Amino acid sequence: MTEPIDFYFDFSSPYGYFMAEKIDALAAAHGRSVCWRPILLGAVYKVTGDVPLPLKPLKGDYSKRDFERSARFLGLSCRIPDVFPIGTQVAARAFYWLDDHDPVEARRFALAALRAYFVDGRDISQESAVLDIAAAQGADRAALAEALAGDAVRNRLKDECAQAIARGVFGSPFVIIDGEPFWGVDRIPQLERWLETGGF
Amino acid sequence: MTEPIDFYFDFSSPYGYFMAEKIDALAAAHGRSVCWRPILLGAVYKVTGDVPLPLKPLKGDYSKRDFERSARFLGLSCRIPDVFPIGTQVAARAFYWLDDHDPVEARRFALAALRAYFVDGRDISQESAVLDIAAAQGADRAALAEALAGDAVRNRLKDECAQAIARGVFGSPFVIIDGEPFWGVDRIPQLERWLETGGF
Repeated sequence: MTEPIDFYFDFSSPYGYFMAEKIDALAAAHGRSVCWRPILLGAVYKVTGDVPLPLKPLKGDYSKRDFERSARFLGLSCRIPDVFPIGTQVAARAFYWLDDHDPVEARRFALAALRAYFVDGRDISQESAVLDIAAAQGADRAALAEALAGDAVRNRLKDECAQAIARGVFGSPFVIIDGEPFWGVDRIPQLERWLETGGF
Repeated sequence: MTEPIDFYFDFSSPYGYFMAEKIDALAAAHGRSVCWRPILLGAVYKVTGDVPLPLKPLKGDYSKRDFERSARFLGLSCRIPDVFPIGTQVAARAFYWLDDHDPVEARRFALAALRAYFVDGRDISQESAVLDIAAAQGADRAALAEALAGDAVRNRLKDECAQAIARGVFGSPFVIIDGEPFWGVDRIPQLERWLETGGF
């Protein structure tokens, strides 16, 4: 029971953002650590044939309402940005580069980027925004910019997405605890009971 | 605050079955009544372009696991039937015919049919099964059989589906409280808070 909990999310997913605000404390309450894994829902949807939630007939309208109601229910701030959804390759690549150097800083960056997008409405699809947010968390801006221009972080993100899909990840957030998959921030109650009981 | 709560479901939806087991007590705890409205997800999916959950890549495998885990979490029995999903026109038409004669009997029929399918594995797509279940709840088997052969119940169900779609219903279960839509049995905590607070 000492394996970290895997937490998959897309930087453009409101429900992923909500889980990001909750998962570390939730895991810590049960003596567990969390491995954060940003992915691209676009890569997942190529496999599943799915489309982004906001574009779905009927479900899209509902989801906007549900995003904001779920945020209030969870006690979180969230305003759906004017440009939504966005491409999150740059943010995800930056995360993995930071993670290889300093996992704590990478997590701080991820939370800051999610809040910048979902609370302050900043467009984190832009490299300049990603660099600013990372630098504010203490990252080396120039070194990160250089890394983002190279192939290594691109390939790394591709590999992470492929591995996630191979594990059955099809949405955001997606949490795997000791092999048990949980999709959606609305699975927090089940996830908590799973951690309390070691499976039910 | 005296309008009934609208509860939409498909007889072939496990999450709809779970909600059917919960919604009346939940509403009654807040002095509210519930209007049950079976629909056909097939009719909804023609509008949304969606496909049945079990047929979706990755999500289908996950959902089978989630159905059974969610049942355990909610303290309900559920075994996904061998034939799943099924057509539920006959069950839904029978419901509306019964509902026009005796709403209490119609609700008893609906719960009995859902349990027959999701607990006992009976194929409730068959008219004989629907008639048996209705008769066991006190319905006039011959009169119901005659009604099911006619056009009135067909048109009634079509109208109900069209009205549901017009209200934005795109899945099962789908609950509307004073104009506020809730999709999914996992929205029970939000639904309870909504009833407690009159909106949040």
